[in-house]
Amino acid sequence: MEFAELIKTANVEDVVLTQPFHPPVKGTLCVTGHHLLLSARDGDSSVELLLLLRNVDAIEKRSTTSSGTITIKCKDLCILQLDIPGMEECLNIASSIEALSSLDTVTEMYPFFYRPTSLRLNDKWGLCSPEQEFEQISSLSERWRLSDVNKDYSVCPTYPPAVIVPRTIDDETLRKAAKFRQGGRFPVLSYYHRKNGMVIMRSSQPLPGANRKRCREDELLLQAVNDSSNQGYIIDTRSPQLAQQARMTGGGFESKSNYSGWRRLHRNLERGKVLQESLIKLVEACNDQSNNMDRWLSKLENSKWLSHVNTALVTAGLLAECVEREGRSVLVHGAEGTDTTLLLTSLAQLILDPHSRTLSGFMALVEREWVQAGHPFQQRCAHSAFSHARLRHEAPTFLLFLDCLGQLGRQFPLALEFSEALLLRLFQEAYASNFGTFLCNSDRERCALGVKEKTHCLWQWLSQPSVRPKFTNPLYQSTELAIWPCVQPQAIQLWQGLFFRWTNNAKYLEEAWEEISLRVKQSKAKRCKESPAQETVSSEVAV
Amino acid sequence: MEFAELIKTANVEDVVLTQPFHPPVKGTLCVTGHHLLLSARDGDSSVELLLLLRNVDAIEKRSTTSSGTITIKCKDLCILQLDIPGMEECLNIASSIEALSSLDTVTEMYPFFYRPTSLRLNDKWGLCSPEQEFEQISSLSERWRLSDVNKDYSVCPTYPPAVIVPRTIDDETLRKAAKFRQGGRFPVLSYYHRKNGMVIMRSSQPLPGANRKRCREDELLLQAVNDSSNQGYIIDTRSPQLAQQARMTGGGFESKSNYSGWRRLHRNLERGKVLQESLIKLVEACNDQSNNMDRWLSKLENSKWLSHVNTALVTAGLLAECVEREGRSVLVHGAEGTDTTLLLTSLAQLILDPHSRTLSGFMALVEREWVQAGHPFQQRCAHSAFSHARLRHEAPTFLLFLDCLGQLGRQFPLALEFSEALLLRLFQEAYASNFGTFLCNSDRERCALGVKEKTHCLWQWLSQPSVRPKFTNPLYQSTELAIWPCVQPQAIQLWQGLFFRWTNNAKYLEEAWEEISLRVKQSKAKRCKESPAQETVSSEVAV
Repeated sequence: MEFAELIKTANVEDVVLTQPFHPPVKGTLCVTGHHLLLSARDGDSSVELLLLLRNVDAIEKRSTTSSGTITIKCKDLCILQLDIPGMEECLNIASSIEALSSLDTVTEMYPFFYRPTSLRLNDKWGLCSPEQEFEQISSLSERWRLSDVNKDYSVCPTYPPAVIVPRTIDDETLRKAAKFRQGGRFPVLSYYHRKNGMVIMRSSQPLPGANRKRCREDELLLQAVNDSSNQGYIIDTRSPQLAQQARMTGGGFESKSNYSGWRRLHRNLERGKVLQESLIKLVEACNDQSNNMDRWLSKLENSKWLSHVNTALVTAGLLAECVEREGRSVLVHGAEGTDTTLLLTSLAQLILDPHSRTLSGFMALVEREWVQAGHPFQQRCAHSAFSHARLRHEAPTFLLFLDCLGQLGRQFPLALEFSEALLLRLFQEAYASNFGTFLCNSDRERCALGVKEKTHCLWQWLSQPSVRPKFTNPLYQSTELAIWPCVQPQAIQLWQGLFFRWTNNAKYLEEAWEEISLRVKQSKAKRCKESPAQETVSSEVAV
Repeated sequence: MEFAELIKTANVEDVVLTQPFHPPVKGTLCVTGHHLLLSARDGDSSVELLLLLRNVDAIEKRSTTSSGTITIKCKDLCILQLDIPGMEECLNIASSIEALSSLDTVTEMYPFFYRPTSLRLNDKWGLCSPEQEFEQISSLSERWRLSDVNKDYSVCPTYPPAVIVPRTIDDETLRKAAKFRQGGRFPVLSYYHRKNGMVIMRSSQPLPGANRKRCREDELLLQAVNDSSNQGYIIDTRSPQLAQQARMTGGGFESKSNYSGWRRLHRNLERGKVLQESLIKLVEACNDQSNNMDRWLSKLENSKWLSHVNTALVTAGLLAECVEREGRSVLVHGAEGTDTTLLLTSLAQLILDPHSRTLSGFMALVEREWVQAGHPFQQRCAHSAFSHARLRHEAPTFLLFLDCLGQLGRQFPLALEFSEALLLRLFQEAYASNFGTFLCNSDRERCALGVKEKTHCLWQWLSQPSVRPKFTNPLYQSTELAIWPCVQPQAIQLWQGLFFRWTNNAKYLEEAWEEISLRVKQSKAKRCKESPAQETVSSEVAV
């Protein structure tokens, strides 16, 4: 299909653009295959708008006989307005935006066309691989091995080709265990805790079904995770009732008798439609200009978003406690093992693992625990909070993860090397991006479409020396300690930086961070010059 | 009365103290006339607790035959627990705390005994005076004069001896106008806006009563504030209904016909008991460990505290707009003119006046607009959020002011020279202090008791070079512009630093601020050394 077919009117003059924090500006609107452009008419034809069409979540049009207004609601929660002279032009532009923003052929999306000058296509794709991860673990423990049982994605279509499993379990056992797990997501290693050798494993639900089937290989696999002396925990992210109900449709949970080395804990985390509707309600409340305080607070409560943030942090804290304080290994799963499971394993790593709190460690974590682990980004992030399209697979699980991280960052202002700006950026990128990183739903799909050969990698772009500082926390000081979040409901705050990004002017806060960055840079430069040794001492003291 | 009579047991050994963020510690408890002391029993007898008894808001005791527990709830919202061996000792200690914490003879309070080595009693008392204030204004405008009509406090018992009034109004007119205002609080100048010569005046309500009495002198006084061409605004901090009702008890409002140069706006701000109960509910909700998110948010809403913060900011914004944007003078009053009136005039000054945003300018503002202007601190701050004593005159108006300032500080992180630490400190000082600044209800009372001769002044202490930096915002950059707060309900945040000061660990946030301060200091030192001229340039750019 040619984009040109979808563009009936490519240019309109005298269009007035209204966007947050800027006075309205008049200029020439231009629709291309992937962008909406508005150039002002003054001398230098400055570009006032360059909107990736993929970022459009919903549009509303109102037209009279002679002109029309299009309101564009973006996935990143920004709202724009275009006043277009000419009814026909308005309708043409609107229908182009609608069609081009909802293309679902991945290879027609912008990442396949984006060619920034600072990156090259044959640069290394991604930051980390199961191979690198295994190399580190194998230097610490001999109990694990790297298996390429999934090298052609036949055992589990949503896993990467290589996974880390207990050394004593052979590929044949894995193949059989995979048949006993939804979508083939057999238990694999997610995180190795250096301090005590305990691990976090993740999988999907087992498939005992109504007949209480069992699978010896699945049991063996889990047995091999634990020392015989040490009982592990299974955190099931569904309520006991939900887990029980799942048996009726072939799913279920690990029974006590067949998995005697494991103790099951149920902690219900909301997912899917419930989460998506929560986000929709919250954003609606945030954008309502007519709120008084009572109405606002009751809408906030009613959206339940903060409850979801709270529950996620509480449960991730529990998971981290099991590992660090109780010295147990933990298996996490819900049903599919691609959403709340990943939310918990990745949050727990940020609590426990100092490396994951560095900028590059964090990017590697997102790549490993979300992208490679098969979080279906394309389905989950197809729409954000404005679309009236009927919800199917959408769910803001990744946004919930970022929000939880924002809470961590506010509670521990020195502990994360990356800044709020990175969290905001990742939210945007997951929903609409120039890069291929968040395309598709699994490694297999990305492989089939040549994503790694034909698009650029977000992590490479973020890692550039000119870009990195924008996403770095100037106050960062590494600590080896776990950072235990305060999880009382009173301690959870609404993420102002995201939800009020386009309604309250964040300019002053950004200025403050720029000022802090500048001062830190200056003071570091000074200290290095004066006495390089001091640096180390003082940062140790501060930790 | 001798304190000794109130102390039946002065010392108890083996008392266990439990306080927030510290492990329990055992030591010797000692009750003195003004303090509760606990010294640990280890080698160096370190003092683990030095609690000003005035800070105790409420105590609860539980005792068995052999021991007892006293829970101390402080006015600064901290909660402590003492486990005391011996029932009799426990009861004695409890009754001493109860008696000594509620002494109401001002001259027996600790400020009359506190003698810090760094200050001397005959140091200048206070930071500003009506004389100094007038000196500045008289250099800008000839329309004002300093009147000492109240020099013996006979015209208005709650005003300072000197006040600023229109030049054309003589003292005799002031005396008559004062008789037409509740408590004699005739309209006086609160703030002179340099940019356009407009002023903020404040007073109490007029006293037309049910018979619609009028007072020619009061009318003349207000006429003299305005140019004949320019209409002023009266912001009445009561609803139209309340203002109307007030006529039944002798009060009322400025009628349109008798005050033709003024336009009246009614903006209802809650006060007194309603505000106090709001604080009590909020603190109860904050300290409730059993909250889930829904319960917490609905308790937060139910307390209405954030609504009061919001309304105060909205109305102060309106006041500032009238002055700066509409170029009008404004008279503010409610009923007594000692609470919401001062809240609005002082908040508006912080929005408008760059000088009031400096550390010393802010301290002078609090002294002028709260202490000297007759906010009855002793009555309003007699109890905080825990006391079960029947409410009479208590109201957290000053705390509400500090909370609004906290909102400003978060919205404009560079604009205030003072830090959140100063706001927290002023909250503490207003309720229980070593200093005389917040004692009594008016200048007259302070004068009668010799407060200025026999106690130390908080502002002097805060102004010491060794103390000042603790309360300074390292990011401060002065700006001449007004800072217009965002007053949507969504933008108002609960003041975590105050309300969760003792329940969530603020350690990490404090560390972050220390780090920022250190870096700024280092970078400033460096820049001064390198090039003194750069400093000015860069701060101008940043503004």
